[in-house]
Amino acid sequence: MANSEFGYVRNFEQPDALPPSNWIVVRIDGRGFTKLCKKYDFEKPNDRRALDLMNAAAVEVVRSFVDVVLAYGQSDEYSFIFHEATAIFERRAAKLASSIATAFTAEYCMQWSEFFPDQPLARPYPTFDGRCVCYPKRKILRDYLSWRQADCHINNIYNTTFWNMVLKGGMSNTEAEHALKGTVSADKNEILFSKFGINYNNEPMIYRKGTAVYRSYGAGPAINGVSGQVKTADAASKTQLEKEKKRKQKASIVVEHVDLIGDAFWDSHPYILASKRGEDCGE
Amino acid sequence: MANSEFGYVRNFEQPDALPPSNWIVVRIDGRGFTKLCKKYDFEKPNDRRALDLMNAAAVEVVRSFVDVVLAYGQSDEYSFIFHEATAIFERRAAKLASSIATAFTAEYCMQWSEFFPDQPLARPYPTFDGRCVCYPKRKILRDYLSWRQADCHINNIYNTTFWNMVLKGGMSNTEAEHALKGTVSADKNEILFSKFGINYNNEPMIYRKGTAVYRSYGAGPAINGVSGQVKTADAASKTQLEKEKKRKQKASIVVEHVDLIGDAFWDSHPYILASKRGEDCGE
Amino acid sequence: MANSEFGYVRNFEQPDALPPSNWIVVRIDGRGFTKLCKKYDFEKPNDRRALDLMNAAAVEVVRSFVDVVLAYGQSDEYSFIFHEATAIFERRAAKLASSIATAFTAEYCMQWSEFFPDQPLARPYPTFDGRCVCYPKRKILRDYLSWRQADCHINNIYNTTFWNMVLKGGMSNTEAEHALKGTVSADKNEILFSKFGINYNNEPMIYRKGTAVYRSYGAGPAINGVSGQVKTADAASKTQLEKEKKRKQKASIVVEHVDLIGDAFWDSHPYILASKRGEDCGE
Amino acid sequence: MANSEFGYVRNFEQPDALPPSNWIVVRIDGRGFTKLCKKYDFEKPNDRRALDLMNAAAVEVVRSFVDVVLAYGQSDEYSFIFHEATAIFERRAAKLASSIATAFTAEYCMQWSEFFPDQPLARPYPTFDGRCVCYPKRKILRDYLSWRQADCHINNIYNTTFWNMVLKGGMSNTEAEHALKGTVSADKNEILFSKFGINYNNEPMIYRKGTAVYRSYGAGPAINGVSGQVKTADAASKTQLEKEKKRKQKASIVVEHVDLIGDAFWDSHPYILASKRGEDCGE
Repeated sequence: MANSEFGYVRNFEQPDALPPSNWIVVRIDGRGFTKLCKKYDFEKPNDRRALDLMNAAAVEVVRSFVDVVLAYGQSDEYSFIFHEATAIFERRAAKLASSIATAFTAEYCMQWSEFFPDQPLARPYPTFDGRCVCYPKRKILRDYLSWRQADCHINNIYNTTFWNMVLKGGMSNTEAEHALKGTVSADKNEILFSKFGINYNNEPMIYRKGTAVYRSYGAGPAINGVSGQVKTADAASKTQLEKEKKRKQKASIVVEHVDLIGDAFWDSHPYILASKRGEDCGE
Repeated sequence: MANSEFGYVRNFEQPDALPPSNWIVVRIDGRGFTKLCKKYDFEKPNDRRALDLMNAAAVEVVRSFVDVVLAYGQSDEYSFIFHEATAIFERRAAKLASSIATAFTAEYCMQWSEFFPDQPLARPYPTFDGRCVCYPKRKILRDYLSWRQADCHINNIYNTTFWNMVLKGGMSNTEAEHALKGTVSADKNEILFSKFGINYNNEPMIYRKGTAVYRSYGAGPAINGVSGQVKTADAASKTQLEKEKKRKQKASIVVEHVDLIGDAFWDSHPYILASKRGEDCGE
Repeated sequence: MANSEFGYVRNFEQPDALPPSNWIVVRIDGRGFTKLCKKYDFEKPNDRRALDLMNAAAVEVVRSFVDVVLAYGQSDEYSFIFHEATAIFERRAAKLASSIATAFTAEYCMQWSEFFPDQPLARPYPTFDGRCVCYPKRKILRDYLSWRQADCHINNIYNTTFWNMVLKGGMSNTEAEHALKGTVSADKNEILFSKFGINYNNEPMIYRKGTAVYRSYGAGPAINGVSGQVKTADAASKTQLEKEKKRKQKASIVVEHVDLIGDAFWDSHPYILASKRGEDCGE
Repeated sequence: MANSEFGYVRNFEQPDALPPSNWIVVRIDGRGFTKLCKKYDFEKPNDRRALDLMNAAAVEVVRSFVDVVLAYGQSDEYSFIFHEATAIFERRAAKLASSIATAFTAEYCMQWSEFFPDQPLARPYPTFDGRCVCYPKRKILRDYLSWRQADCHINNIYNTTFWNMVLKGGMSNTEAEHALKGTVSADKNEILFSKFGINYNNEPMIYRKGTAVYRSYGAGPAINGVSGQVKTADAASKTQLEKEKKRKQKASIVVEHVDLIGDAFWDSHPYILASKRGEDCGE
């Protein structure tokens, strides 16, 4: 940026680099999606096309940000997890949140017509806000993902029951809301089964578990490098990082509806939250 | 968001509300636009279609965020000025920056085909990062705008000279770069005039001054209210605010290429930076 | 600090410079002063020795920090106002707050025996926490000072009435508390006058208004320079700043119990909040 | 604080709670101690009385802040480590830094005359600035302590050699400085031994290693509880916390000059960095 007598205004910019050695979650949320659902007549309780579009957008975002180790989405939100050692954008919060949110928004808008071929997008176009949150330990990051997946479950069992009561049970929205007040999961399971013949556990995984997106490596070594470093990298390791970046760019990207709360997923994919080589902090 | 044993992870979210009584600039910048210019063969030194697209996107963003009092753009950047008294999103920085950046990105992508009908967008789609900066005084905010407009001027006179030397003067890029090293504006004016018969001051205003976007009110009173308040609003003023919001939504939006450094523009548009009713801080 | 393989830990330090062109208030508050009052048997409702000690400590802090334009104290708190253009400690918040708080604490402890000659200090020694708050406009800064002075008034009229009821009126603490519940200032004035023959407006100013501490200049020019600048200072102005610093160090320091809410004080002391030469932001 | 029309100024206070599950270091540094050393004629290269005073002050600070698990000091600085799970002052940075800094300052001033009986303190009184830094993992916290102890070593071997050259070797300050330029530790060891008959490794540990201050528990169980919790504590655990607080207050406080870089100290004092009961984050 050119210099001038006005250049002093740059001093008002505040630094916003996130602290090192923290997992960075960038969570994006659909803005005004309640209206958007109505406008495009999304199916209730879940619109498969809308979720497929969310996931398709997420795949492209994961593909283009190689330091994202995992993304998890449900409803109109998606969380992108950056490795704790990432140096992308010098870890600046505004740059991270806005780059992810705009990449997601662009994909969502541009892919819309593939998923909703009969409903051209009209203003206001779909957009997503984004924010960064830092998690200092692996266990807490896993608790974050568990929190979002538990949220998915709680909302989905409620919505599934509510919309069955309304669409098949002939209740008004207010009646259904009232009937569900104070119920726990077991009650809703019972209502679904006894009144509508639905075994909730047979509902599609995508609705019950949400969606995880991550890289899958074939037979190669499963070290999870990142494209930057807190400590100074020597020439050798730079070449190494470059190699790992290419390896990631070539990796296939997996879209799965899987439990993230238990240990099974993590035990079978140890590389996802693995330390960067030589950077294990004893955790 | 549903409650669970994992809900404690919310405590890791850091508050990011910007301080009251500061003008908030949200500046967005094109990501990787050097590559994008080449990919779509943008004209040098300025591509009118690309600038028109930037401005068309900015108009829609200004239209949908009624607390934006002015936007200023040049090259692949745009600054959106929120009134110092805005209460939008409780002034949260990440929400502001990402909402503006995604709204702009969506407009840019969706309107692309109108401005580049023969060049369909392909991945990576255009995106913009965004950040917030606070300016505590009107004068400093004006210096911010002057800074961006001076930047526009300095870059444009350089680029205009450079590309004339290359495209009409037959120089290589390196030769032109070398020839311009150490020159001041007067030198470039002279080169343009003597070698290429160009009077720089006759170049289009959009290239030399960039673009300002703002609301224009007809004959009505020129009070600049905002959709929220630092101090508690009583019932009467809420109605009043609602009225002002509607008035703004109906206002026509002006796109101008005009000097913002001198006083003339501001003297003739006093409402743009006017205080909210009863909120003048003696500045 | 010496370099080593461990030096990377410095990257965890977060920058905390306060934004330019904001008045900086450093407010210190006595820690655990309720206990301290009992321990040293402070007089109720006001202990003149304790207030005099607070003020004596504040005078020394103002003397040693030449960029403090005014300090205001009441009860066990003191606010030190730094000029909006100060460059002290590069405006770093932790450095500012802790330097002022420790300077005040040291003075308070070291001067204690002059004000309480018969009560030697014992652990826990008196300490003060400190914090910084930024105010972007003069008017808001004045509102801050009005807020603290209004707080002084409200607390003092309550305490004066309460302790008269207890000490002279023979009420228990609980009875007095109960009797005062829901009363406004006029009620308390009436109680004081009718029951105890006290005209509240004749109470000492130090109790009713708190204490302002600032520099007084004799006949000299009343420009309020600061020891640093946002914009680059040339050689001449550096000499000038040095001169102003010396002038401030020689200025006498005034301790006054005076109304800060109205305009009179500010009209008669325009230099206190005056702009730095050539730095007026049009406020 | 009393309410009034001015109360809106509180909205300018920015939240500054440090993120949960991070070890908090509050480091204090003597302000202007180069001058203070000269004023009170501190011995070179180390003044034992001054270090003993620093350590005596630190002991009292550790005693009164039960969530401090370890303090480490050298020269005119001290680092106080708060357990990663501390809830003291809601983890607010300014409150933490200023409370520790003023407590240390008060102790330093009040104990001065015990260590320097013949040199009464005069203005400017000794003060200390303070700042907070967060460390997300135990290993990084240990690297922080190693960094400070390595700094102590590097400075002390330099100062020991320098002052021997000046005081015993008859060099001027400039000559000694020049002679030491570019030397490594081995060179300085050699100079000390060959010219002054000093085996550096026999120098007192307090000078070579600095000082660690921590609680020592007798035969009791070695669980390191803290006085607050991130997660909600039930009644039982509150009683438990209260017990642990009392246990800590009764614990004796150890002052040691010991290596903190290797594992030996930590292996023999596992409770110092132990997790809070039921709060291990898998690190």
